[in-house]
Amino acid sequence: MGQRSDAKSKMVKAARQLIRERGYHATAMSDVLELSAAPRGSVYFHFPGGKTQLAAEAAKAYASEQADLIERAAEGADSAAELVSAYVTRARENLIKSNYTEGCTIAPLVLEGARESDLLANAGSAAFSLIIESLAFQFAFFGMDRPSARELAEVVLSGVEGALVTARAFRSPTPFDSMLAALVNHATQLGVAEPASTSELPQARNRANSKGTHI
Amino acid sequence: MGQRSDAKSKMVKAARQLIRERGYHATAMSDVLELSAAPRGSVYFHFPGGKTQLAAEAAKAYASEQADLIERAAEGADSAAELVSAYVTRARENLIKSNYTEGCTIAPLVLEGARESDLLANAGSAAFSLIIESLAFQFAFFGMDRPSARELAEVVLSGVEGALVTARAFRSPTPFDSMLAALVNHATQLGVAEPASTSELPQARNRANSKGTHI
Repeated sequence: MGQRSDAKSKMVKAARQLIRERGYHATAMSDVLELSAAPRGSVYFHFPGGKTQLAAEAAKAYASEQADLIERAAEGADSAAELVSAYVTRARENLIKSNYTEGCTIAPLVLEGARESDLLANAGSAAFSLIIESLAFQFAFFGMDRPSARELAEVVLSGVEGALVTARAFRSPTPFDSMLAALVNHATQLGVAEPASTSELPQARNRANSKGTHI
Repeated sequence: MGQRSDAKSKMVKAARQLIRERGYHATAMSDVLELSAAPRGSVYFHFPGGKTQLAAEAAKAYASEQADLIERAAEGADSAAELVSAYVTRARENLIKSNYTEGCTIAPLVLEGARESDLLANAGSAAFSLIIESLAFQFAFFGMDRPSARELAEVVLSGVEGALVTARAFRSPTPFDSMLAALVNHATQLGVAEPASTSELPQARNRANSKGTHI
């Protein structure tokens, strides 16, 4: 049982890696088995739904990893803008380290797989939602109101997804550099923006601060 | 000859459409032939390099179309921020109109094809470069210095690419709305930013204005 579930997690890890490097359709089950060194029978035992199920698990694993990264990055940050900077820089460094081969595991499922599989469509949407919620959660503890925190989180996710595509195309980090400047600008603006009614401002700040002390 | 080159352009159009809907690997030559109603012999006659050559042409056609869109959007805009707004809104409306099926034709080539084909890697890079240059060219005529114009163009391209992925995943336009706010903010900031030496400012503006009157 231990060996079998080990095979499962190795296959998910291999699928996550191959999909981010070459996309969904170009990732064959045989490639996943080879990279994970899992026995052939593992496919039917652990993934009765076949490649779509494995890819959905890979998207989930990728999103969980991103959520962990966000949590760790937030620990070293003093503001929403600093968290944005740390998170985007992490994605930039990882892309360079992989020689521009490691993109996002979720994007290929959306662009290639969502049309033919509701499971993949839902997995992609759920995985992106987790990343947005993880960012928005941290932004709230830096004092941002909920709508601004969600808005910024959505922009950061889209910004990183876009930069992962264009930076890979150019094999250059400059799309990350220009995007980072825009995102940090935006984080700073949203972070200091006053609510519609100025009378709500101190209350909103207190709410955020009191949450912050309860971490 | 006329009929043959008509078949070629129909195939490129069909490939551009199918790749943006389902990705590169899931687009089979047989699908392209079916959608374009081109005779089977057209493949070898017009695309001796096969699917990679056809996909490269599709990326080129997509980029040319985007360059035309940018030129037309610039005609109705009074500032870099207005052009950004018009261009992003156009992408947003097109995605909604297609019921979230029509993404970018270039992105799948980068995520799926660049690894296995230098032709696709180069086509993706060249196509993105054309879009960036088209935007930067227009931004310069709105008075932006060249580095700022390039930086903004790069951010706009990455922002649209990212929003196309996340909005398709969520089947919702909100990623475009949040990204648009960030991009317009950034365009406004870069547009009013003064060069390092303030003495260069009037000169730079005059250059931009005198160029503008020669269009």
